[in-house]
Amino acid sequence: MTCRIVAFGGGKGLAASLRALRTLDADVTAVVTVADDGGSSGRLRATRPLVPPGDLRKALIALSDADVALRAMFGHRFAGTDELAGHAVGNLVLAGFMETMADPVAALDAAAVLLSVRGRVLPMSTAPLDIEADVEVDGDVRVVKGQHHVAVCDGTVREVRLVPPRPQACPEVIEAVAAADWLVFGPGSWYTSVIPHLLVPELRSAIEISAARRIVVLNLSDENETAGLSLAGHLAALRNYAPKLSVDVVLADTGATGEPTAVARAAQSLGARLLLAGVAESPLAARHDPVALAAALTTVIRQDEVG
Amino acid sequence: MTCRIVAFGGGKGLAASLRALRTLDADVTAVVTVADDGGSSGRLRATRPLVPPGDLRKALIALSDADVALRAMFGHRFAGTDELAGHAVGNLVLAGFMETMADPVAALDAAAVLLSVRGRVLPMSTAPLDIEADVEVDGDVRVVKGQHHVAVCDGTVREVRLVPPRPQACPEVIEAVAAADWLVFGPGSWYTSVIPHLLVPELRSAIEISAARRIVVLNLSDENETAGLSLAGHLAALRNYAPKLSVDVVLADTGATGEPTAVARAAQSLGARLLLAGVAESPLAARHDPVALAAALTTVIRQDEVG
Repeated sequence: MTCRIVAFGGGKGLAASLRALRTLDADVTAVVTVADDGGSSGRLRATRPLVPPGDLRKALIALSDADVALRAMFGHRFAGTDELAGHAVGNLVLAGFMETMADPVAALDAAAVLLSVRGRVLPMSTAPLDIEADVEVDGDVRVVKGQHHVAVCDGTVREVRLVPPRPQACPEVIEAVAAADWLVFGPGSWYTSVIPHLLVPELRSAIEISAARRIVVLNLSDENETAGLSLAGHLAALRNYAPKLSVDVVLADTGATGEPTAVARAAQSLGARLLLAGVAESPLAARHDPVALAAALTTVIRQDEVG
Repeated sequence: MTCRIVAFGGGKGLAASLRALRTLDADVTAVVTVADDGGSSGRLRATRPLVPPGDLRKALIALSDADVALRAMFGHRFAGTDELAGHAVGNLVLAGFMETMADPVAALDAAAVLLSVRGRVLPMSTAPLDIEADVEVDGDVRVVKGQHHVAVCDGTVREVRLVPPRPQACPEVIEAVAAADWLVFGPGSWYTSVIPHLLVPELRSAIEISAARRIVVLNLSDENETAGLSLAGHLAALRNYAPKLSVDVVLADTGATGEPTAVARAAQSLGARLLLAGVAESPLAARHDPVALAAALTTVIRQDEVG
């Protein structure tokens, strides 16, 4: 039977895991945070009641089997200084589908057909959301509002929240989680792309009670929002927001962990074993190599099937 | 062998003939004027060096076999008052293809694949053009600039010109005309959508020397730019811009001709017979009924095959 994988994340990090997972001949569902308020998505949200399309677009392209011309058009960002400048064409196509179909999931399924997507792309919630965080700078804690501002803030994130809190989960996501063989978390901006999934109550419960195995793919490099947060700290943050979450495998890049003992211990406290592999594009790169990441994920998932 | 038909026009009128021609199981090429400067196309042209996409979009949708969700998205016009308001999604998709492929014909072929288009949609020239006209109002002749202004002007069009004059034809259009079995002109805004094709020197020559049979589909109602111009006058105008043009059939709605003698005589002066048929949606409608128009065109084209 085809292995059913649900991958959680936001923009670039999720696209990296999807590009790896699509090589596994599995049934992949991508679940995307819908709190993006920067760039083209932010401008669209400001005037239209839409789920922000930018990260959904990236996930669709990552899973697309369409020809290069179609993928290039969908990912094209208008240059210049006119009213279109900065908008990605795919965002406008998704906005068009959402406005004509009035159902974000139906709109994403239509876009998936258009792009010959292998798998499915879903929003974690069908309502647009915002993120805010308590951020400590020089001993002072202040509230930073908006995914974009949190993602680029200096300081230490003390708590991250969804606005409005406790949103409804997307029912199709709950179904996919219940039926999944594997759940994949990360890589990605930890507080603004990975943890938000655990802030949707029904989704957190579905993840905690799912019979699926769970893998966490750790980041390669610090981002602003997690500056000073160790890889072990990333795992502790997950546990903080989902105390009942157990994990089977934590995958980290050989070069990113430094001394792996602390990471291994943090993995263990989630019930997971630590798998180290060379999954970075190059020793200093901040990007995952899709082939190497695919190889590592294949090892984990196929070994489990055999075992 | 499949009948090869090339249909010339602009926006709505060409879409009407295409919706009829697509039912003929023929190989249809739509050739679209690229002088549109109104609405969404006008805004795109003002800041980007693009062939105006609006009428190309309408022709693509008219020939599309795609599902209703895709066609609705492509034809959707953003409402509201923000920077996207008034833009049709399909125009933005065509702009994206044109910018990423840097070749309008390749871009249109890619869009045709996307929309499962039965046939091909081509621009009459690969360079964006403008239209201007000498318009007589109350005895004064003044120059009206821009397709949109000419199309809605009050007064009598004395001469229509392309700016810049004598543009290059699209080579693929010349090939299609040379290989065609039938050329179809109209319906459509006569001075701004039909006659412009005869103002491209190489295209006019190709039309005049083509071995194809030629049919002119006359309009149902006056438009501003042709107010006061009789249907016979429409045919005289064609002859004025392409003196060597011979026509085989002139198709007019039974109700639109009034006393048909003058129209029959004008058709005869082009070498054509006049075919009267009920092709309007209703006696007073300004729109062609696609089924009735298809039936009339089928009669003309199939009779010719038998004969």
